[in-house]
This record gives sequence, structure tokens and C-alpha cells, in this order.
Amino acid sequence: MARVIVDVSLKPEILDPQGRAVQGALGRLGLAGVTSVRQGKQFVIDIDGVVDEAKLHELAGNLLSNPVIENYTLRIEQA
Amino acid sequence: MARVIVDVSLKPEILDPQGRAVQGALGRLGLAGVTSVRQGKQFVIDIDGVVDEAKLHELAGNLLSNPVIENYTLRIEQA
Repeated sequence: MARVIVDVSLKPEILDPQGRAVQGALGRLGLAGVTSVRQGKQFVIDIDGVVDEAKLHELAGNLLSNPVIENYTLRIEQA
Repeated sequence: MARVIVDVSLKPEILDPQGRAVQGALGRLGLAGVTSVRQGKQFVIDIDGVVDEAKLHELAGNLLSNPVIENYTLRIEQA
């Protein structure tokens, strides 16, 4: 069995109001020195059998992320 | 500067309807063998100066995640 982890994050040039809100809250609650917070999504996908890596990249880039505003990274951990 | 990455995921016993929807979509779009999909959140936090690790864990466990239904993992990358 393989575990595939897809991290989806906003492209750097896209504003992230949720991240900014978290940044403000972290500061108010006593965490010093925070210069940036970006919020993204993470998908943990378990796959039985052969992993079709090309298909995975196609789906990660189009279904799991929006290629207009998001980047993704994909890593495969064999279990 | 340090980069802190906090991954927040639903506890295993909590149902994840979004993940189930993604699992169905991946199968329909041609990815074979998917046995489970879980969707979580990821926060990428940049911190200047000294990193207060205890405070980080306190905030990750209460502000960034809901300890009733979510787990978090935290890793610190020095830049």
C-alpha cells in the first residue's frame, strides 16, 4: 500500500486573507515575530496496488488544486 | 528565520465527507485502487527571531486545530 500526500497552497502572488487573520490572532495571543502565515489544504490518499503517478499528477493539478491560483506538491510514501 | 509547518487532520474516528467525495471523484476520473482520502489543513508560518516552541504547540493545539476532532503535527525548518 502507498500513501500519497498532496499539499495545496495558494500561489505566492495571491492574497490569503485567512492566513492574514491567523497571523493577527497568533500575534495577539502572544507568539512573537510572525512575519507571514499562509493557509493551504492537505490530502492524504491511500492507494492499494500500483500507483499511477502520471494520473496522480494530472488529478492533483486539476481536481485537488485550482491551477489558476494554487500550486501543489505531491509525495509518495510506500508503506 | 524559521518556517513552521502545522498540518491539521481530522482524528481517524471522525467521518470526513469531503474526503469521501474526493475519493469518489478520483475513482470516477480514472485513478484505481484508492482506499481512503482524508482532507486536512496546512499552515505555513514564517517567524523572525527566536521560535517559542511551547507557545507554538499551545496555539497549534487550540487555535489552529480543534482538539475535540482534530490532530496536528508541527515541524520547524530553520532557513
